[in-house]
Amino acid sequence: MREFDEKKFEEPTLSREQIFHGQIFRVVKDLVSLPDDTMATRELVFHNGGVAVAPIIGDKLVLVGQYRKAFEKFIYEVPAGKLEADELDDPKAAALRELEEETGYTAEQLVEITSFYGTPGFSSEKTYLYFPIGLTKVENPRPKDEGEFLEMIEVTLSEAKTMIEEGQICDAKTIMSVWYWELKNLKTQGDLDA
Amino acid sequence: MREFDEKKFEEPTLSREQIFHGQIFRVVKDLVSLPDDTMATRELVFHNGGVAVAPIIGDKLVLVGQYRKAFEKFIYEVPAGKLEADELDDPKAAALRELEEETGYTAEQLVEITSFYGTPGFSSEKTYLYFPIGLTKVENPRPKDEGEFLEMIEVTLSEAKTMIEEGQICDAKTIMSVWYWELKNLKTQGDLDA
Repeated sequence: MREFDEKKFEEPTLSREQIFHGQIFRVVKDLVSLPDDTMATRELVFHNGGVAVAPIIGDKLVLVGQYRKAFEKFIYEVPAGKLEADELDDPKAAALRELEEETGYTAEQLVEITSFYGTPGFSSEKTYLYFPIGLTKVENPRPKDEGEFLEMIEVTLSEAKTMIEEGQICDAKTIMSVWYWELKNLKTQGDLDA
Repeated sequence: MREFDEKKFEEPTLSREQIFHGQIFRVVKDLVSLPDDTMATRELVFHNGGVAVAPIIGDKLVLVGQYRKAFEKFIYEVPAGKLEADELDDPKAAALRELEEETGYTAEQLVEITSFYGTPGFSSEKTYLYFPIGLTKVENPRPKDEGEFLEMIEVTLSEAKTMIEEGQICDAKTIMSVWYWELKNLKTQGDLDA
């Protein structure tokens, strides 16, 4: 990467109007100054961020099905949840909590696959995606969140790819988990061939 | 996939309060009925959705750098933009428009890689991700959107992977584009080996 003056692209806030302060996110409307000294408005959603875990047991990935009100559809996703205010500095603890609540599993170790912004155009929500190692069933797992209704399933890589094609898997973190899994398999295959 | 009664997971809207109707998104707060007949609130962001294109020219991926106000950071992404109201039924046309505006390239054909929800927990934003075939420079490309300041670069797969590790690439659609590219390369490699 060549050196480059990123500073000149910054958008200093001239004024901020708070629109909504909810339980899940906060909405503001900013007036910002642009590099050419004109002004623009930015509608923004602030969110604590989330965690997700791609639990692979043998040749199966554990998914949880749930209803997503924002687009009125029942879909299958990797176990995930939002960071609580006291978990912002410890996303791994949040990921272990969500894994246990949603699947009844815990892990010896979580390896970070990547972290990403799902909708960078307007939202600060960042998701940390983990690959768990050493999965075991918890005897008396922590209960699900109130108001959360889930259906747990286990699928092979081939089934997961079909579910992406058919739209039953259709969110960023879960598609990324499936592709990560496929990349991992192809690379291992390559190593074995070599 | 086994047969399964998804209907029982639906969350019928009991009442809806409109919080904000902006230029980019709309925010509502719903009171919904849950499967166990209790009630819950859902804070939702409605968005027209977006398009993104992963333009690979030779062994390089074209990226555009821009400032993202939601998390106050300059990052590199594949060319992308939001669907305008009159483009909802034709995301490919929107993708070609964004590709031309942001990079000066056009494509003979767009193959859909996948489409996904970036933040399914609260937002309806769906992004259509395309792989363009037959890229050529446009002589007098359509101008960028007003208030949009971009820096175009071209990177190899290895450079793109380093940028993910270092956080210069950190959004879902761009990480997915890089992984798709790597999967494609590995599979082609496999074919050549066979």
